[in-house]
Amino acid sequence: MDPIMTKAAVAEQVVTARLRAGLTWQEIADKVGTPLVWTTAALLGRHPMSAEQAAAACELLGLGDDVAEGLRLQPYRTRDDAVATDPTIYRFHEALSVYGPALKELIHEEFGDGIMSAINFTVDVSRRPDPDGDRVVVTFDGKFLDYRW
Amino acid sequence: MDPIMTKAAVAEQVVTARLRAGLTWQEIADKVGTPLVWTTAALLGRHPMSAEQAAAACELLGLGDDVAEGLRLQPYRTRDDAVATDPTIYRFHEALSVYGPALKELIHEEFGDGIMSAINFTVDVSRRPDPDGDRVVVTFDGKFLDYRW
Amino acid sequence: MDPIMTKAAVAEQVVTARLRAGLTWQEIADKVGTPLVWTTAALLGRHPMSAEQAAAACELLGLGDDVAEGLRLQPYRTRDDAVATDPTIYRFHEALSVYGPALKELIHEEFGDGIMSAINFTVDVSRRPDPDGDRVVVTFDGKFLDYRW
Amino acid sequence: MDPIMTKAAVAEQVVTARLRAGLTWQEIADKVGTPLVWTTAALLGRHPMSAEQAAAACELLGLGDDVAEGLRLQPYRTRDDAVATDPTIYRFHEALSVYGPALKELIHEEFGDGIMSAINFTVDVSRRPDPDGDRVVVTFDGKFLDYRW
Amino acid sequence: MDPIMTKAAVAEQVVTARLRAGLTWQEIADKVGTPLVWTTAALLGRHPMSAEQAAAACELLGLGDDVAEGLRLQPYRTRDDAVATDPTIYRFHEALSVYGPALKELIHEEFGDGIMSAINFTVDVSRRPDPDGDRVVVTFDGKFLDYRW
Amino acid sequence: MDPIMTKAAVAEQVVTARLRAGLTWQEIADKVGTPLVWTTAALLGRHPMSAEQAAAACELLGLGDDVAEGLRLQPYRTRDDAVATDPTIYRFHEALSVYGPALKELIHEEFGDGIMSAINFTVDVSRRPDPDGDRVVVTFDGKFLDYRW
Amino acid sequence: MDPIMTKAAVAEQVVTARLRAGLTWQEIADKVGTPLVWTTAALLGRHPMSAEQAAAACELLGLGDDVAEGLRLQPYRTRDDAVATDPTIYRFHEALSVYGPALKELIHEEFGDGIMSAINFTVDVSRRPDPDGDRVVVTFDGKFLDYRW
Amino acid sequence: MDPIMTKAAVAEQVVTARLRAGLTWQEIADKVGTPLVWTTAALLGRHPMSAEQAAAACELLGLGDDVAEGLRLQPYRTRDDAVATDPTIYRFHEALSVYGPALKELIHEEFGDGIMSAINFTVDVSRRPDPDGDRVVVTFDGKFLDYRW
Amino acid sequence: MDPIMTKAAVAEQVVTARLRAGLTWQEIADKVGTPLVWTTAALLGRHPMSAEQAAAACELLGLGDDVAEGLRLQPYRTRDDAVATDPTIYRFHEALSVYGPALKELIHEEFGDGIMSAINFTVDVSRRPDPDGDRVVVTFDGKFLDYRW
Amino acid sequence: MDPIMTKAAVAEQVVTARLRAGLTWQEIADKVGTPLVWTTAALLGRHPMSAEQAAAACELLGLGDDVAEGLRLQPYRTRDDAVATDPTIYRFHEALSVYGPALKELIHEEFGDGIMSAINFTVDVSRRPDPDGDRVVVTFDGKFLDYRW
Repeated sequence: MDPIMTKAAVAEQVVTARLRAGLTWQEIADKVGTPLVWTTAALLGRHPMSAEQAAAACELLGLGDDVAEGLRLQPYRTRDDAVATDPTIYRFHEALSVYGPALKELIHEEFGDGIMSAINFTVDVSRRPDPDGDRVVVTFDGKFLDYRW
Repeated sequence: MDPIMTKAAVAEQVVTARLRAGLTWQEIADKVGTPLVWTTAALLGRHPMSAEQAAAACELLGLGDDVAEGLRLQPYRTRDDAVATDPTIYRFHEALSVYGPALKELIHEEFGDGIMSAINFTVDVSRRPDPDGDRVVVTFDGKFLDYRW
Repeated sequence: MDPIMTKAAVAEQVVTARLRAGLTWQEIADKVGTPLVWTTAALLGRHPMSAEQAAAACELLGLGDDVAEGLRLQPYRTRDDAVATDPTIYRFHEALSVYGPALKELIHEEFGDGIMSAINFTVDVSRRPDPDGDRVVVTFDGKFLDYRW
Repeated sequence: MDPIMTKAAVAEQVVTARLRAGLTWQEIADKVGTPLVWTTAALLGRHPMSAEQAAAACELLGLGDDVAEGLRLQPYRTRDDAVATDPTIYRFHEALSVYGPALKELIHEEFGDGIMSAINFTVDVSRRPDPDGDRVVVTFDGKFLDYRW
Repeated sequence: MDPIMTKAAVAEQVVTARLRAGLTWQEIADKVGTPLVWTTAALLGRHPMSAEQAAAACELLGLGDDVAEGLRLQPYRTRDDAVATDPTIYRFHEALSVYGPALKELIHEEFGDGIMSAINFTVDVSRRPDPDGDRVVVTFDGKFLDYRW
Repeated sequence: MDPIMTKAAVAEQVVTARLRAGLTWQEIADKVGTPLVWTTAALLGRHPMSAEQAAAACELLGLGDDVAEGLRLQPYRTRDDAVATDPTIYRFHEALSVYGPALKELIHEEFGDGIMSAINFTVDVSRRPDPDGDRVVVTFDGKFLDYRW
Repeated sequence: MDPIMTKAAVAEQVVTARLRAGLTWQEIADKVGTPLVWTTAALLGRHPMSAEQAAAACELLGLGDDVAEGLRLQPYRTRDDAVATDPTIYRFHEALSVYGPALKELIHEEFGDGIMSAINFTVDVSRRPDPDGDRVVVTFDGKFLDYRW
Repeated sequence: MDPIMTKAAVAEQVVTARLRAGLTWQEIADKVGTPLVWTTAALLGRHPMSAEQAAAACELLGLGDDVAEGLRLQPYRTRDDAVATDPTIYRFHEALSVYGPALKELIHEEFGDGIMSAINFTVDVSRRPDPDGDRVVVTFDGKFLDYRW
Repeated sequence: MDPIMTKAAVAEQVVTARLRAGLTWQEIADKVGTPLVWTTAALLGRHPMSAEQAAAACELLGLGDDVAEGLRLQPYRTRDDAVATDPTIYRFHEALSVYGPALKELIHEEFGDGIMSAINFTVDVSRRPDPDGDRVVVTFDGKFLDYRW
Repeated sequence: MDPIMTKAAVAEQVVTARLRAGLTWQEIADKVGTPLVWTTAALLGRHPMSAEQAAAACELLGLGDDVAEGLRLQPYRTRDDAVATDPTIYRFHEALSVYGPALKELIHEEFGDGIMSAINFTVDVSRRPDPDGDRVVVTFDGKFLDYRW
């Protein structure tokens, strides 16, 4: 039996098809009807898509049912330490390394003992014009969860 | 010669004095006249303070000149892999692990080949009320730097 | 000679066949006549199956003798550090990181010097309804083994 | 200024005082009025105690205000890879290594895409008599959190 | 309160006292009335001793009640990767690296799916005379535990 | 030129052929005329076989000259850290972690400064009946080598 | 759909074609019209090329459109720890290990708190004749970025 | 006997004395009569100083003979992976990660098979004014060594 | 375009051809006209060969132009930590672990501050007869390089 | 009881005393009557000394009985990965990384399957004059041990 396409193979198909078709991630997100970052992450293999979402994406990208089947698969969201060294991604980890303890202090002061959820969570990226050079603005927005026995 | 107090020893003094005096990080930041996250990070050893900033913080906290001298010191901002496993901090790294490739795609699509600076950079944390449970909102705001030869 | 199918290839076949046939893990476990978690683990490659168990599973899933042969193979149960970073699995390891020393203290207080066996051992997962949100309940149940010379 | 006692130093004091006074963890938990595993974990440095909880524990154990101050401190709950190799604790990690993928499959099948919270979470340990040797039963009970954008 | 002496400090005292008194490990084991390897391991911090065992060892070695208290403490038996590189110890790990898969095959063939317990377990070391050079003979003897649901 | 079959490919052929032919490792060892553990290790790729030994094994297993050629190849005996986490093999490493320093003390006391050879070395595994459950007995037997300049 | 050629496959094609055609990196850079080190890095997969640059390189090298497509792809610039151990590359890392703290001190003294950008950055390599043996001269030239909130 | 001050303790003394005296590294280098980067590295513990150099530095910094003795000591120049994560230092390693293979190609093309020496080697750091922001220029200058049997 | 054969594939061809032809490494070295260890290392992929050397080796071994092309390729000489655990190779690393600091002291005492070059360097291996068992003698011979600014 | 001085503390005393007394390692070796490298290694903590050897060394160095007691102690010869990155020591490991597989091939060709002992083993370092720069010559000389069941 031909096994389900892996998330890595699915992402490779999506990346190829998107570039050849000259589509933006926003155009795909609009077609699928889901938020931009969520859609991009899902197409790269980090969220399962519903059958309708997968079909819409594949229709726009000109990809087949095998890709759609793979997009619906429940993923493993494992950490890839090599990916974390890509400079575009590394700067975020570095910022957390520098400011992580301060964020921890301020979250505990404001909310008490607990965490920002990474599951009940959204992330957004946008451009903020600035005369000294435009800025990348990334917002993490997660439900506070208190340690509750 | 008594060596300058290390950043770790300085932070221990600040944490102790703050708790015993019952001060919030915001009250210290107001006294020093600097942004909240920056001030917290600096007092925990991640930024050097000016002489005036250090003196203001130590006066409020009832700490001596040795602490003020240590606050002025240029820090090493080294990564601490153990700190990164604290659940409050880990959730941020996990979110980057899940969404990092999507952020990379979207930054390159919007800005071209480059990165969000972690140096010309601010971070802010706030509470957003929500009927399903208030939310932690953390904003990364860094200048876009394009790969430029 | 065609080598025996690896456990990874077997699991890929099982995952594919299960999804395409629309079967639940419970339905497969009922067919095989073995406990739910054990059956799932075995089909994913963590326990060897008897010839009868393997045949029953493959019949239900529409898989061939090569898969059945692979299911009977004695596995290596090696640790995969990447898998451990998947958020669904990571939370268990994090809980052990937070509560492990407390569990150790209480096991020694109640039983003396020794361990909970991970071999003479069962694990169960269930849903517990709760008005604040249903809960995942996972029970580890292992024979106590005392350090005995 | 004498720095606040570290969580490690606090735990060392608690362990020493408990053994010399011949108290069980249950007796301390009864005095503090909190669950057994939570109390043990808090006294070992993994949860902050309220002022009343810390005072009650220190009174029973004959420990001073410096220990009580340390018990109230917000902890870092960092992972300690050496502790994870202690056989009593290792067996739990090994069980997760063997059964983690099966738990993941079954949680997703029952609840959909999401995780068991390790924050809105309790853990319990008990003895179950068994003619073939009594058993250690550890129950993880955490709120299900679905990936929710 | 003076904390209980750590296992490392206890071992340092034992090693020092043994060498200065010119005692063999066998003489200490005879005094304590316990097997040779077990006794050596316990004095080096890997097993808790009973009050009588600890008292007997300390009497022979001329060590005080603080050491005896430390000997009774329940240990963490954590792995130390540096110790594993000492050549005398490394050769055992290397032998397992070379022969581990063969041992696994033969244990499963003889006993079925399971393990040799490292808890219900003894180890012995002896000298076997040989004209080509005497030999170190180390015997591991552990109860077989079958994977039993 | 078709390259020599790798040791991994050879072992895969041996494992497959042995299971399909229903042969025990002892039967193969008897045919080859070599000790049980040595033979198993050699067939799994950890020792080179002579041409006669390889031919005898391949004849019994019904394998071709390409496998025999691979069995004669001088191996790399590299460490595989993942294999070491298989529970059946891990227990041996754990026992060394617990008892290694004691073995080192006793070897030095009995023999002086040196090591047990892992090269001039045999290992044996056997079953010892025991009313409380049969036991796995593994014997390491290596020539003592003293540090000799 | 045939996926876009990976950067590794592209680099393998470039390396092969360059050697077979007997071209120098400088000749390729001249053809592409870009700086030497930048061009070499881009062809090895570390920078995306424009369509014109990729076409020029492929024309000179006799490579097809699939390679040109791969050259235009946005790369991951992940760290490869094995590559860093190649002696020609390792010496640079070693020099940074020896002189890194001195460079840090001098950058902070001259510029204040900040970094040399690795993005707004050029690197050059040249030969400097020397009677005691010619010298490799590598110049890093990056914009200073001050920590600026 | 009071042991020689470690290089770490010496560096701590130098850093403290330099800051309290308000001296620049250049002023110290001028006094010692050695190049700027070399002097800074030596005072931070990476090169041994001659008796005259150490005496001159200590005289200027107001430090005693114990520091001078430590400055003369032959150092271990070990790598410190934590230091390498400081952002000011990390950018250099990142640049090597991105451009290392290109530098290797170009060195081999220009010089043949060999390396840039990190021993017969100098490094310099300077400021280059630039209307878009001044630049940090770091030059590595090492003798080429060819692989020569 | 068929890519150049990798060094790993080239080495696999050489190893296969050498064994099937029954040639010694010395015979190949004699044919190529280069030193024994150098030749062996080059054929295993650690040095580039000249066109003449590669042709001579391939002629003797009966290998084609594709192998010869691969032999001429400039190699990456990356470290392989798994290879370093092979017992035959590990003993050298262990000896350096035991004697490294002593070698460092004696090199510095005899030569001053510097290193033995591993580039301007030869290594030789020979057998030295000894009535207690013949000995492996390996000589490292490298030019001394002093730290020279 | 004052614990025996650790090997690290002993080595620190030896290094200090040697430098202050202006003695060479050879002079100490002559006094002790043992080979140069062995003596240096032993004084740095890698071999136990006899009572006579320790007394002779301490008499020459002007060190007390506590140091002599420490010199007699059986050492742990653990690997220190940081020490291995010191350039003087690293070059040896690099050479093994480059030539290790060649040495393995040649040892097996000459001696059969086995290793060079690192226990029945000597190492020597000497200077070889050379008009192009004197050379460091290090000889490893160990008994061949064949894999012998």
